[in-house]
Amino acid sequence: MNVAVMGYGTVGSGVVEIINRKDLGLTVKYILDLREFPGDENAAKFTKDFNDILNDETVKIVIETMGGQNPTFDFVSKCLQAKKHVVTSNKELVAEKGLELITLAKENNVNFMFEAAVGGGIPVIRPLTFCMRANNIRSVNGILNGTTNFILTKMIRENMSFEDALKIAQANGYAEKDPTADVEGHDACRKICILAALAFGNHVYPKDVHCEGITKITLEDVANVAGKGAAIKLIGTAEKLADGRLYIIVSPAVVKAESQLSAVSDVFNAVEVDGDATDQVLFYGKGAGKLPTASAVVADALDCAEHDAVRRPIFWGPEKPDLIADYREVENEYYVRGASLDASLISETLGNDAFITKPITENNLRAKLSGEPKSLIRVAKC
Amino acid sequence: MNVAVMGYGTVGSGVVEIINRKDLGLTVKYILDLREFPGDENAAKFTKDFNDILNDETVKIVIETMGGQNPTFDFVSKCLQAKKHVVTSNKELVAEKGLELITLAKENNVNFMFEAAVGGGIPVIRPLTFCMRANNIRSVNGILNGTTNFILTKMIRENMSFEDALKIAQANGYAEKDPTADVEGHDACRKICILAALAFGNHVYPKDVHCEGITKITLEDVANVAGKGAAIKLIGTAEKLADGRLYIIVSPAVVKAESQLSAVSDVFNAVEVDGDATDQVLFYGKGAGKLPTASAVVADALDCAEHDAVRRPIFWGPEKPDLIADYREVENEYYVRGASLDASLISETLGNDAFITKPITENNLRAKLSGEPKSLIRVAKC
Repeated sequence: MNVAVMGYGTVGSGVVEIINRKDLGLTVKYILDLREFPGDENAAKFTKDFNDILNDETVKIVIETMGGQNPTFDFVSKCLQAKKHVVTSNKELVAEKGLELITLAKENNVNFMFEAAVGGGIPVIRPLTFCMRANNIRSVNGILNGTTNFILTKMIRENMSFEDALKIAQANGYAEKDPTADVEGHDACRKICILAALAFGNHVYPKDVHCEGITKITLEDVANVAGKGAAIKLIGTAEKLADGRLYIIVSPAVVKAESQLSAVSDVFNAVEVDGDATDQVLFYGKGAGKLPTASAVVADALDCAEHDAVRRPIFWGPEKPDLIADYREVENEYYVRGASLDASLISETLGNDAFITKPITENNLRAKLSGEPKSLIRVAKC
Repeated sequence: MNVAVMGYGTVGSGVVEIINRKDLGLTVKYILDLREFPGDENAAKFTKDFNDILNDETVKIVIETMGGQNPTFDFVSKCLQAKKHVVTSNKELVAEKGLELITLAKENNVNFMFEAAVGGGIPVIRPLTFCMRANNIRSVNGILNGTTNFILTKMIRENMSFEDALKIAQANGYAEKDPTADVEGHDACRKICILAALAFGNHVYPKDVHCEGITKITLEDVANVAGKGAAIKLIGTAEKLADGRLYIIVSPAVVKAESQLSAVSDVFNAVEVDGDATDQVLFYGKGAGKLPTASAVVADALDCAEHDAVRRPIFWGPEKPDLIADYREVENEYYVRGASLDASLISETLGNDAFITKPITENNLRAKLSGEPKSLIRVAKC
């Protein structure tokens, strides 16, 4: 079956490499990219004109690895309307425009698939959507960004400051020159939005999710929790509350020693899904990188090829007003440093002017603290 | 869509419970069991006659949770020939008769699915078969049996003998009165055979796999490796060797501290799949239990309902002569206690008369040891 690949960057070139080297029944007919790639072995397949792909009826599957929303959303929409299946690794596109695109796909009886958008090469979306669908999902917690996890691992293991660890991540190619999307949590936020939509059935937009990065984490805090075997990680959480609302947040969190997520180090990612039948299930591996991500894209393309006539039932509804609870009004345990609290509200004293609270809302906690704390970090429930 | 459930034991009753309580578009029309269940709320659905199910054309999906091969193989074969999809949680049936049954399913253009046969509620088979299929799989390593992992965890953490830990496992319902299938590794062996067939494409029969249980593990060995942060686990391994043959074995193995499998404790299971695109990916969760296993069965049934017309391409070929290498002729690091070896072949001395070898075949190692060792345990490569 003929496919077209839009975007010949890291992931796109990996997709072409895997399709060329493995006999999977797929043939790359076009590669869309405005850049020049002199001497590339796929030279004959390059085009700068999207219409070459759109108007070629032999192209049944379009793989989008361009990134961003513009012109990607327009291109993907047109492909779906032309009854071509679309596979993407573009988490921004899915987090912001997923509802429109899965709706378009449904209307045109084609598939829109995005396994690679969360967790790179780690199977997460298909297991959550298909293997676990006899469950009511209670929560999803994940280490969803390899760059920040690499930085935090350096801070934890080598007692290195955030700034120094970031420099090493950049030198190793794990962090971009402008690391904002990673270190401020925006990348992880897109991913938890996608997981929340799949797990709970309504589109959740990144703008509605409280998102806090790792730039303010101090070595004092890292050391204070390490004494208990715990670790500070950037955790994306989406949890169904008893009242039906959603607690969804991306922020640093104290992960206790007994959690599987506490052992997830370096650039690795992991997603823990808690279902009412399975209890906690964890998916772990490399969350980014050329071939891991490309392999997930190619698996989606093969799924599309096998489901040319039957649609895969990946779907969720529009955003729901008042679905998202104010994160400051949801009870959690908190790690606090540099302020004091009535002993009856403390569950554990860590020394060094730090303690863990009993479950309390952030608003309540702040009202009861002796002053502005130096650090206030939620304790993850995973 | 109407389904029939054959076998109303732990898993079968869990399947009925999930289908009844969730609106999934499935209806249980028959429950086949020779036993009586007085007062059961599903009384009207019970039958003792398999032909009620076989001859009812409105039953499109048959769920087999009886266990064993007889009369299960006969019943499942007849259902497939009658063009009914079959879902099973029966690892013995799949490991021994999987080739015949997937072939029958293919000939009759129906699906034969068995996600629950490995890892209970943990998604493993679908991720391996579909999400990772753009990979060439290099190896699969897994903690595939919760009972033995519970016993080993007790031995490691509480310095308890195998016999005492087994008694606690039995008292907690984690081990059967006759624990042979678990503690001798037969259960794990069936699972690694299924994973090997899916990963490498040929049926592997349990009788051809070297299988060694945990009854001979001593507290001395547990303590010796614990000093290095390592743990002794019952590991199922299937690895593609450079010459194309398969190294497949179930045995106790030393799992190094840096392996994700070393942190898998109690009744939890985990499967690590190493693919040439993704590198190592891990799936973790509860490998057994009523609702976890039942939820995987129900997910398969839903997949069958959606693929009533299109077949899911789960398939492997017949066993291949000479595919399986003699495990004693494959190089590994080994843990040895109670015999001495030329220092040039030792990679690490552990004290207490124990050491880790450099990579060497077991046959070579035994020839070079000063005598019969008290313990000889492979070091896992995961």
